[in-house]
Order: sequence, then C-alpha cells, then structure tokens
Amino acid sequence: MLDSPKNMQNVVKNNNLLPQLSLDDLENMARGAAFLGTGGGGDPYLGRLIMQHIFAKYGTPKLINVEALKDDDPVYIAAMMGAPSVMVEKITGVNEVETAISALEQHLGRPAAAIMPAEIGGMNALLPLAIAAKRGIPVIDADGMGRAFPELQMVTFAVYGIPTSPFAVANEHGEYHVIKARDNKASENAARQLAIQMGASVGLSCYPMLGADAKRTAVRGTVSLALGIGRAITEGRTNGDPFVTLQTYLHSTDYYNQCKLLYSGKIADVSRKVDKGFTVGKCIITGESSAENNLEIIFQNEHLRASLNGQTICIVPDLICILDAESAEPITTEGLRYGQRVKVMGVSCAPIMRRSKALQTLGPRAFGFDEDFVPIEDLIESH
Amino acid sequence: MLDSPKNMQNVVKNNNLLPQLSLDDLENMARGAAFLGTGGGGDPYLGRLIMQHIFAKYGTPKLINVEALKDDDPVYIAAMMGAPSVMVEKITGVNEVETAISALEQHLGRPAAAIMPAEIGGMNALLPLAIAAKRGIPVIDADGMGRAFPELQMVTFAVYGIPTSPFAVANEHGEYHVIKARDNKASENAARQLAIQMGASVGLSCYPMLGADAKRTAVRGTVSLALGIGRAITEGRTNGDPFVTLQTYLHSTDYYNQCKLLYSGKIADVSRKVDKGFTVGKCIITGESSAENNLEIIFQNEHLRASLNGQTICIVPDLICILDAESAEPITTEGLRYGQRVKVMGVSCAPIMRRSKALQTLGPRAFGFDEDFVPIEDLIESH
Repeated sequence: MLDSPKNMQNVVKNNNLLPQLSLDDLENMARGAAFLGTGGGGDPYLGRLIMQHIFAKYGTPKLINVEALKDDDPVYIAAMMGAPSVMVEKITGVNEVETAISALEQHLGRPAAAIMPAEIGGMNALLPLAIAAKRGIPVIDADGMGRAFPELQMVTFAVYGIPTSPFAVANEHGEYHVIKARDNKASENAARQLAIQMGASVGLSCYPMLGADAKRTAVRGTVSLALGIGRAITEGRTNGDPFVTLQTYLHSTDYYNQCKLLYSGKIADVSRKVDKGFTVGKCIITGESSAENNLEIIFQNEHLRASLNGQTICIVPDLICILDAESAEPITTEGLRYGQRVKVMGVSCAPIMRRSKALQTLGPRAFGFDEDFVPIEDLIESH
Repeated sequence: MLDSPKNMQNVVKNNNLLPQLSLDDLENMARGAAFLGTGGGGDPYLGRLIMQHIFAKYGTPKLINVEALKDDDPVYIAAMMGAPSVMVEKITGVNEVETAISALEQHLGRPAAAIMPAEIGGMNALLPLAIAAKRGIPVIDADGMGRAFPELQMVTFAVYGIPTSPFAVANEHGEYHVIKARDNKASENAARQLAIQMGASVGLSCYPMLGADAKRTAVRGTVSLALGIGRAITEGRTNGDPFVTLQTYLHSTDYYNQCKLLYSGKIADVSRKVDKGFTVGKCIITGESSAENNLEIIFQNEHLRASLNGQTICIVPDLICILDAESAEPITTEGLRYGQRVKVMGVSCAPIMRRSKALQTLGPRAFGFDEDFVPIEDLIESH
C-alpha cells in the first residue's frame, strides 16, 4: 500500500528543471528548513547568517538530482552534531564541517563529487549548501530523512544498509577523529561522546557512500522542497494567506501532498527538559471554543505525536509543524511560548520512510510510543 | 659534554653485521626487553608467546638499521597502550595493533616500508617484531626511548618535533579511531581515554614519520641491544656469572657502557598503588650488612630514582634495573616481592636522551623530582 506506484519517488530527472538557489532565496530556504525541522534541527537563523557570508564570497552552489550522479561518484554528508543550545552561543562555522569532510576524504582516498545533507531540518539543511559553495561542487537535492530527527542512525542511509562509519568529527581547532565502529549504534555513541568532549558541538561527516548508494537510499527532492515551502509562505504573506499558498504548494509535491491543518489555537502549557542531550517534553494547545478538546504535542527535539483527547491525529515519521497563526512562520520547540496563537499542520512523509524496515528505526515504537504508525491520510479519514 | 663525538650515535651501518633473529632467540629477546623495561613495559612473557606463534607461521622479520631507510620511506610505530594488569587477563593479539597500523596507512595513503618500536621495554619491544613478520617487512633496529616510559609523549620522536598525531587506536573488534589532535599532550589524553573506553588496552600506531625523521630522532641499535642483553644473561647462567657476562656485554655497546651494580640485598618493603592508570610506589631494599644504608627505588610504572639515605645514585632517564640475585632475571614492579634477593644495576641511557631538550620531557623534573639530571657516570664518581 505504502509503496504504490503513485507514491513512488517520481521526481524530476532533469537538473535544468530544478530550482536553483540565489542569494535572495536564503530566507526562504531557512524558513522551509525550519518547517521541515518539525520543531527541531537547530536554529535556521544562524545557518542563514553563515550562508549569507559564504554565498557572497563563493557564489551559490549548483543543485543536482541524485540521478545526475555516476554510480561510483563519492558522496559525502555534511552536518553539525551537538546541543542546539550550545550552537547558539558558540557560533558554528563551516570550518569544523569542512575539516571533518576533508579528514574522511583523506581516509577514504577519494574527494567528494557532491555534498548531501543528512537532514533537511534547520541548520543541517543549510550547512551542506555552504560547504558545496566553498568547494565549488554540487549539492544533492536529497537527504536522509526528508525532515529532522534527533539521532545519527535515524536516516534512510542506515535503514537501507549503509554503515555510519568510517565517519569523522572535527572541532574548531582543526582536531578530528576518524572512527570505524562495529555498528551504527556504536557510531552514534562514539560520536555523541566526542561531541561532548570536543566542545558540545562538532562538525560531522558520516555515511560515506557512492552515487549508487545515494540513488538507492536517499529521500529525493528535499532541498528544493525546503526552498519551495519557504517561497510559498513568503509569497502568501504578500499575496493572500500563507497557509493557502503553503498547502497549495505541498499538494503539488510528489509525497508531501497529504497535508492538513490539524488545529488552531493558543499555547496553554509547555513543559520542556533536557534529558541525555535531548530537549524532551510536551506542549498543550487550547482551541478557539471551550467545547473543543486540547491538542497535545509530544516532542524529543522534534515533534513526535499530536493527539486530541488521547487519540493520535498525526505521528512520527509524518511531520507535525507548529506555525505562527498569522505569518505561518515555523516555531521550534525552544521558541514555544505561553499564549502564542498557532496553527498546527500535519504532513505526510516520503514513502521510503514509511516502509516497515524504516519504521523500525524511525516509527512510533522507536521513540517509545506503544502504537503502530498510521499514515496521516488514514488518520484524517478516520478522524 | 653529553654529545661528545665519542658518545654520538656511532652504530654499525651495515645491515649484514646486525644480529638477525631466530626462533631460538625469543626468550633472549624477551629477557633483554624486560631488562630495558626497567620495571615497566608490561609482561614480556605474553609478548614471547605471541611471537612464538607468529614467527612459527610467518618466519622471523629482518632487522635493519635506520640508515638503511630511504629518506621518504614511510615508517610506522607498533605498540599497545593500556593497563598492564588488564593485558594479562585480556590476552593481547597482534590483530588490534595491525588494525591500528592499517587504519593509519589508509589515512595517510602510504603503506609502511618498515615497522619501528616506540619503546624497547617489555611487550612493546616484541609486538613490532610480530607485525613486521606478518607483513613481511623489516623491523628497524631502533626505538624512541632506548628503554620504557609511561606516557605517549615521552619519546625522542616527540622531543625532536614529530607530532604524535595523526595516530590510530584499535581494539580486538576491528574498531578504530584515527585522531588528529592539536598537540602531543592532547593526543596522549585522547589516546588514554580511548584506551579505557575501548576495553582498557588498545593497539596503537602513532608518530607516523619518514625515513629522514627516523634518522634524526630514533635511539639506534636498541632491538639488537635487547637481544644482546638477553643473550649475555643466558650465556652467563651456563658459563659462569650472568652479571659478569651482562656487564661485559654492556661495556662493549656504544652508549649503555656506563653500568654499575648499585646494590645487593633483600627486598624489605614494597608500597604500590594504581593512580590515574599508573602503578606508582616505592621499594626498599636492605643491604647485606646492617651498617649499610637501605636502597630506596621510586617508580611510576618504570623505576625512576635509586637513592641511599636520600642521596641519588641513579636517576631517570638513566636505567635502574632490579635483577634476581642468582639468575639475573629482570623483575618488573608487579613482580617485586618481600624477601626477594636482588641486585640493582644502573645503566647509562643514550646521549640523545640526555640533551637538555630531551630532559625537559624525560628527565627527573618531568616526573616531579626536585633535582636535575646527573649522568650515572658522574654520580658513580662522586659516590
């Protein structure tokens, strides 16, 4: 059912049809990345500042489809790992990510043909663009989640058999570790510990792969998706209703087309704590009429489950996005405040994320929920 | 004074004159390595068992002089790092050392032309022979200490400017870390932490260098020295007095020729504790007549200072070796027992270790003693 031909990854194959980035698009790209971050993924504002500087100096990178890669083209991932709250104080440069990629390239003996994001949420959606621009190589219009997730192994690359290691982490002093771990969980543990030891946020390059691997495992079209989402919201602010333009755009996409405004209301309560390096908690939103049930959203960095009176209405890996009720600006979990007027949107994720193998790693039970994944379109019907 | 022409590294240049190893020599090599371990360096018996197995399967490795290297030949160090007490229980294979070397070779893109020991004391004197045999490449007749020392940066390689990193550590599961640290102390800290995390003992390859670096920094002739010491002790046991044959041999060497029996007596007290991963403590030896002062030996893994009534008679980096009074078998700090009859020998170290730059890292003050280094030959005169 989930992999019906209609839902398969039927994406634009011709790079000339891909949207190309311009300096003016930075704000849109950052806004779309915040939307796809579903509450997590770090502050895209910082990523935008970094990109502004890099793009002005080196130009914008070329966006290419996964299909444009040769099967043996080396593909490297560019990401930051660490506590978002630290990244705010210790401004993240691209240097540590570059150091990590260079160390891994040196180790594997082959330079990158292209850079790919690991997650298309928040800052990690933007850093790969900066690296690709600096290097003068293309950035791939794909990632490993089609959204943001809290852990290193929660990517389609891992789900479909690409090892995390050898991977490299680096800090701002040019120090790096290249690590071969016995499995992906050991890689996650080693990287997380090093992120703490090396200053709470590190540059990371993991899941080194070839073009053929990227074609087999990546979630396609997600960089242009972020750009499209950002552009739609911006356009709607001047030409009507940003929620209308956003939904119109999402309906036009290949697999983010099952989207629905789940709720409108006011934030009544936010409980949030930092546990084992993650921001975990929940948010209660009250409706416009007192007769309505409250909406509860549970999060671990990212929003995981939205429910009304105990009844799930959208659940991970589908996307739950909290947006400002007027401007449709995406709000991160750190940005949630009592009294904010918000609209909550649920969006279908890519089919590759909904296969049973992927759900073992990325589905509700992987996050401790005692329920199976049900696609948002089925929940909407039953609701 | 220390670098007078007579004391300079005037070693045999022709490899054909070098002693070559045979399977029968394993016991001698292990015994000589235990002597040069000056109480530390791990259990050479384990190293011998490993070598027996490897040599029987792959043959013995060829021993070459540093001078036989081309200036741009890649030289790799082979060593174990960790707590000797753990190595006894978790039998050390050559696999983890090989994994570390392979990871570093892969990272630097050049295979090893030859293997060199980092220290010629204990197990770390023997493992490089096993690796070289397995690889079918030569082992260099030199090391970075001409003895054993407790820390990674306490080698002539570091003293004379070769960076510890990039270095690699590996465990028995094929996991490895290749690390670039900002300086040698950071490398020592990172390696020591990983040694603990990865199972308390790890394979290590550090100070990657070229032939020209080895010629500039290595302590020459120390593998054949260990072999010569072992052979001399064994020979003396059947043909007279092992202390006589040992001293005769040492007097014939280029820079271990200032040697003296410092003391004969009985071990009266040993206090020993494990502190920050090191075995630290002291040993009191009482003389044959009650009129004699006791000898005190302070150690941190290795024996550091021998004194009579507070008066230093031999001090690091010169060698202090405790030997069984009958057989001249070297005794490690872990092997010291109340009532043992022992003889203590002091031996001059290599001139390259006595330069002021080396003494900053390897001299008495580096180990917390409030005194300057005085060569054993001068202490003997003043004594």
